[in-house]
Amino acid sequence: MNICFIGSSGHSYAVLESEKLADKSDKSNVVTGIAAGSDGENIENLYNALCRLNHSPKRYESYLKMMDDLKPDIVVIDNYFGEHAKVSVEALKRGCHVLSDKPLATTVDSLNELKKEQAKSGKKIAAMFTMRFDPEFTTAYEVVKSGEIGDIRLINAQKSYKLGTRPDFYKSRESFGGLIPWVGIHAIDLIYFISGKKFVYIDAVSSSAGNCGYGDLDITAAGSFISENNIISTMTIDYLRPSAALSHGDNKLRIVGSSGILEVMENKVKLINGNGEIEIALLDKADIFADFLEYIDGKENTSLNSDDAFYITETALEAQISADKKKLGKHS
Amino acid sequence: MNICFIGSSGHSYAVLESEKLADKSDKSNVVTGIAAGSDGENIENLYNALCRLNHSPKRYESYLKMMDDLKPDIVVIDNYFGEHAKVSVEALKRGCHVLSDKPLATTVDSLNELKKEQAKSGKKIAAMFTMRFDPEFTTAYEVVKSGEIGDIRLINAQKSYKLGTRPDFYKSRESFGGLIPWVGIHAIDLIYFISGKKFVYIDAVSSSAGNCGYGDLDITAAGSFISENNIISTMTIDYLRPSAALSHGDNKLRIVGSSGILEVMENKVKLINGNGEIEIALLDKADIFADFLEYIDGKENTSLNSDDAFYITETALEAQISADKKKLGKHS
Repeated sequence: MNICFIGSSGHSYAVLESEKLADKSDKSNVVTGIAAGSDGENIENLYNALCRLNHSPKRYESYLKMMDDLKPDIVVIDNYFGEHAKVSVEALKRGCHVLSDKPLATTVDSLNELKKEQAKSGKKIAAMFTMRFDPEFTTAYEVVKSGEIGDIRLINAQKSYKLGTRPDFYKSRESFGGLIPWVGIHAIDLIYFISGKKFVYIDAVSSSAGNCGYGDLDITAAGSFISENNIISTMTIDYLRPSAALSHGDNKLRIVGSSGILEVMENKVKLINGNGEIEIALLDKADIFADFLEYIDGKENTSLNSDDAFYITETALEAQISADKKKLGKHS
Repeated sequence: MNICFIGSSGHSYAVLESEKLADKSDKSNVVTGIAAGSDGENIENLYNALCRLNHSPKRYESYLKMMDDLKPDIVVIDNYFGEHAKVSVEALKRGCHVLSDKPLATTVDSLNELKKEQAKSGKKIAAMFTMRFDPEFTTAYEVVKSGEIGDIRLINAQKSYKLGTRPDFYKSRESFGGLIPWVGIHAIDLIYFISGKKFVYIDAVSSSAGNCGYGDLDITAAGSFISENNIISTMTIDYLRPSAALSHGDNKLRIVGSSGILEVMENKVKLINGNGEIEIALLDKADIFADFLEYIDGKENTSLNSDDAFYITETALEAQISADKKKLGKHS
């Protein structure tokens, strides 16, 4: 496969970790080009990382020219979050498969345009739901699927991160796209991924209060949801983890079933059911890019797929819109 | 003080633990009578516990006759949750101070009637917000108040319990009163108690799916809230903790501030702020009945008071109504 990277502002590093791009691989996948996807984007680290993997991508000023010149099979899109959709549309128009960082789009209009373009193209698009590939969440998924907690009744998902120093594009909703579409989307995706049930009620709140001068960046958000089969869930999101905390992030997931509870905390998985409380050994980290390659190769039941990418993006946008309404005093 | 107990279906045991009723105390507080407050209520354990404390309460079939005969200064009300308000109204009419288990009432109408009666009586009423007196939450309150985490921005409150075998009155909304007014109210109260801020947006969901044959008992609930000063919060409630779990309940509280995070988990308090992560030594358990005695004695800034009892009950009812609407397909 001929692969190009556009941008490196989010999770493209997750693709670089793939066996399929590793130096020791058979080089059937070659990164031929990289370009920024947004004005002012710095792709230096991405370039260096690719070189360390013995790829020799050509650097372009214009991602459009790059695609026209190199005609990649796959484009990995990771520019400013508010401009994912714009670049994805161009890639699909050129007949490329697209692996985009989440969210696929940050407005309903651009998401709908992207959907149309994808249908027209016959090419595949997926979003980097990176948490689906983390050992603790893969393990949680398998344990729940095996019936260890019975029917899912309640899910709580938490994402908490250090703010640290973020690029300037975080300061504007237009370029950043919103805390729920950027961070909350992982919580929403985990709830959907684990339960396999669609949302029938979505309510969210968010606030930029105390955001350390980061423009209109929301720094806290939360939501409560009902999914099919009367599954209840919550998410809680913040960028307020203290810099002195031992880890960068504090991701938690709690799945309450009819006959057991599974908790993911500090990268560990704890199962409580009729047999008492035990820690579950973690599965190996799954390979996100390998999964995407299988998806475009036509394999069924891959973790990534277009339907989920569109559905979870749409749900995250709906949640952010729900939160935004409350800021205007429109409390539903 | 001359004290009567009506009912023992909830938290009256918390009052019995008070120094003020202990055998070794000066007997200035005497329990003179006990009676059931709801048809079919068993008060045998309460009677025996009072006798062990060397009180010799007279047992009545009718709580009305008991109050008329014994003319108590204080009535402790702990009958079926759907009938707290009915009994409280009768006690206030007879000039008694009332310490009622939460919620004060389970319908908006009965709450309003109770408010009127309390105003007319000039007597005091408080609700048993027992968690305010638990060492881990008292400690959390003091640490937050001392400024260790800066301004509160986000709060997550969890209550999870084993269902075990519950009395039959749990099976009917009318006698039980609802999962949010009964259990969720503690989460709502902790959010309010710790933040000191009123709620400006309340959204909740709940479900009776998978309730093990307990009639219309909701077994899961959740909510998201905005309080004054743009504080965001969530609650999550369930009765699905497996019977084999090591403890009966799994109460968690997480308070995210502008400069630190405080977490209560497994009865421990962890503080993360600029100084790193530390466990905080717990304060002693506070005495709920001693606090109530101080409140009716006119002391200011007691933990229990009428305003909070009414406000938190009202908020919990509003949340349950929000959840009930969704069950009817009225999604906000």
